[in-house]
Amino acid sequence: MNYSIIIYIIGMILKIEAVFMALPAITALIYQETSGVAFLITIALCLVIGLPLTRKKPTRKAFYTKEGFVTVALSWIVLSIIGAIPFVISRSIPNPVDALFETVSGFTTTGASILSDVETLPHCMLMWRSFTHWIGGMGVLVFILSLLPLTGGYHMNLMKAESPGPSVSKLAPKVQSTAKILYSIYFVMTVIQILLLLVGGMPLFDSICTAFGTAGTGGFGIKNDSMASYSTYLQVVITVFMILFGVNFNAYFFIITKKFAQAFKMEEVRYYFGIIGIAILIIACNIYHIFGSAAKAFQQAAFQVGSIITTTGYATTDFNTWPEISRTILVLLMFIGACAGSTGGGIKVSRILILCKTVRKELHIFLHPNAVKKIKMDGKAIPHEVVRSTNIFFIVYMLIFASSIFLIAFDDFNLITNFTAVAATFNNIGPGLELVGPTGNFGMFSWFSKLILTFDMLAGRLEIFPLLILFVRDTWKKF
Amino acid sequence: MNYSIIIYIIGMILKIEAVFMALPAITALIYQETSGVAFLITIALCLVIGLPLTRKKPTRKAFYTKEGFVTVALSWIVLSIIGAIPFVISRSIPNPVDALFETVSGFTTTGASILSDVETLPHCMLMWRSFTHWIGGMGVLVFILSLLPLTGGYHMNLMKAESPGPSVSKLAPKVQSTAKILYSIYFVMTVIQILLLLVGGMPLFDSICTAFGTAGTGGFGIKNDSMASYSTYLQVVITVFMILFGVNFNAYFFIITKKFAQAFKMEEVRYYFGIIGIAILIIACNIYHIFGSAAKAFQQAAFQVGSIITTTGYATTDFNTWPEISRTILVLLMFIGACAGSTGGGIKVSRILILCKTVRKELHIFLHPNAVKKIKMDGKAIPHEVVRSTNIFFIVYMLIFASSIFLIAFDDFNLITNFTAVAATFNNIGPGLELVGPTGNFGMFSWFSKLILTFDMLAGRLEIFPLLILFVRDTWKKF
Repeated sequence: MNYSIIIYIIGMILKIEAVFMALPAITALIYQETSGVAFLITIALCLVIGLPLTRKKPTRKAFYTKEGFVTVALSWIVLSIIGAIPFVISRSIPNPVDALFETVSGFTTTGASILSDVETLPHCMLMWRSFTHWIGGMGVLVFILSLLPLTGGYHMNLMKAESPGPSVSKLAPKVQSTAKILYSIYFVMTVIQILLLLVGGMPLFDSICTAFGTAGTGGFGIKNDSMASYSTYLQVVITVFMILFGVNFNAYFFIITKKFAQAFKMEEVRYYFGIIGIAILIIACNIYHIFGSAAKAFQQAAFQVGSIITTTGYATTDFNTWPEISRTILVLLMFIGACAGSTGGGIKVSRILILCKTVRKELHIFLHPNAVKKIKMDGKAIPHEVVRSTNIFFIVYMLIFASSIFLIAFDDFNLITNFTAVAATFNNIGPGLELVGPTGNFGMFSWFSKLILTFDMLAGRLEIFPLLILFVRDTWKKF
Repeated sequence: MNYSIIIYIIGMILKIEAVFMALPAITALIYQETSGVAFLITIALCLVIGLPLTRKKPTRKAFYTKEGFVTVALSWIVLSIIGAIPFVISRSIPNPVDALFETVSGFTTTGASILSDVETLPHCMLMWRSFTHWIGGMGVLVFILSLLPLTGGYHMNLMKAESPGPSVSKLAPKVQSTAKILYSIYFVMTVIQILLLLVGGMPLFDSICTAFGTAGTGGFGIKNDSMASYSTYLQVVITVFMILFGVNFNAYFFIITKKFAQAFKMEEVRYYFGIIGIAILIIACNIYHIFGSAAKAFQQAAFQVGSIITTTGYATTDFNTWPEISRTILVLLMFIGACAGSTGGGIKVSRILILCKTVRKELHIFLHPNAVKKIKMDGKAIPHEVVRSTNIFFIVYMLIFASSIFLIAFDDFNLITNFTAVAATFNNIGPGLELVGPTGNFGMFSWFSKLILTFDMLAGRLEIFPLLILFVRDTWKKF
């Protein structure tokens, strides 16, 4: 294990986090909130620890998948612990476990909250909560990569560990350029959404926070009723942008570079929109009697479907009270998740596609034992490594899922609450059903369950293996 | 596709089923029940169709995995349709979909029932219901194989398709001898259980039916309260035998052949008992307050754990009313299931072990990219094929599971009912939770949902691929 480089990168994370915290600090200044001091203290702390760690450039350059995984996992843990400090010292969320849960929920773009009344939080805290979504959505290490021309071959191993999906597409020959392109698209789309929300009459503060939550597919709202009180226009804008941020960013890159055919040929994106369309249709029919108007039922269905499949987690209505088929579809969408290479969570549409194709191939082998058949995506054969790792991802996903349900069941809440609590955190969504439904929150769980769910959120965002490897003894051996 | 041999084997199935139906016919004679005529009619039907089909021995001997799968799947479907006829013509279960559901539930050793009052059924129908468990438990094709010295190389392909678990162990060089050994162990253990039940004062009829249901890990009871009204001694006997029938039969073969070390070294069996032990312990503590005595809590926990993990489905109490952690453990046990090479269903302990080892190996690869590591079981390396097919089994298992929940959700029952209804049928258990709990039944589902669940029962018993292959167009091509 190359400790020197890991420590160096964690030092950089601390410095970057100090920079990020300037935004809530400025917010506090504008709204003249005393709790802004909490951010200044934390910024000072970040610099005091971060500066010495980055003083000396690491000499050993060896950096493999293992180092990439450990670095990313530790970075996210450090980021979250430091990010929780302002909540604790400002007494906004005095309990450290709760503050950690909330911050991890922010960075992992989950949006599950332990707060029952967010409207009492000062503006700076709300801004920080929403901003963590934006930072976590595209990834903080990808952000660092986009800024700093790091030497050595470790860019790709960091990018692989932090980016969602079964494989990383290099949009440009250099990793740094890829990271820059991704963040540019991300930034521009966020700004467009803010402008469209402002046009609809949403206040600037609300617009920024809402756009941060949409862009990162996070879901923290600044109102207790999430998005229910906003106008239909605003809800539609949010619906569209949620769905757009769940699309594989490669598609946008193709569009920018005028490769339209390639963009519209992407199987994952087509299935993504197909699934969304079918889900909206069935749910709209199913909830028609509740809203009494086809347009309203369609709009409500679209918002909730978009929110859940992209794993954002905003809500405009209490879908917990919807009929079973709608609830079931939403639960299934929780697992499918958004596209790979987007800011969304879940298993990812491309993985589901690869899994289905693996099964189809297996049936083919039974019929034609000697035929050689490759699994293809977008017309190209998928490397065997990707298929294998997708299968294993799915297995470990289910094992962790089952273990989590077992571990939090000791709290004695009902099975649907527990099941959807794990589904909502592990897939980085936010709300589940029953007690953790859109009108509920995660505050009632024991600290033990909260830590399990915190683990699930991190495991979900980092796609399990980077986090799991921390628990293997061999990882920490010197060799 | 070699149709001639498939038709020949299906003819044999019909003849064997005619023989099997002698048992309920005799039961009707003893109890002087007129509904016994239904069995005579069905026997006649079996012979009228079966005899011509088996008149001419098939000439083409080509018989591959594909033919094995199709034969087994069609055999089970024919077996079930014919097996349902007596219920329909005797008006015991007049609705054909219900009768098919009940018969498939019998042969697949599920034990899920659409009947709300089994005590009104005549003895011959109860005997047939329980007997289908016994036939389905070890497999009807394995039974045929044990009797008839079929020529050609297709024994193994039939055995592979019908036997539960990731791979088939040949206990003897010849497949026929293996089948004979398995059925002998099965028969002797069933007789011992009947004797022990008789000793405890259970009537002969009850003893036979109960033993059939235990041996096949089926779960059809002949009383409305399942096993609740029997004495503690009888419940303990049933508990022990349920758990014994869930053990990999290879272990018994090792014991018979005095290879004790090998029997006790079997990893799957050790984990099986380990899981049972831990589950009983946690549940016993959790339900202590309900029964007020440690012994009673322990005995009740043991019965229910044994019943669920072996996928039998008998109940001595309404575990639907137990606290959440106990319910959650029982739901998780539903998925784990019994050992491979037993009569039980579920994913199987050995598959879960292989899946866990696959994940461990993946973590190892991240740390040591160039190391070659084989997955081992019982000290021996598992062939790559078995690992691969286990992974794919798990994937298709989950895909079918999710699809089934979606399809039956249109009935608008609650999510736990639907979830556990699929879990209970797909894993061949019987009762689930809520509306399909031990005191409920499957009668309220629509005919569409009943057919979906019937498919799940067959898919679960035949481990999915044999059934799935029927739906691939290529299967039916002549070449």
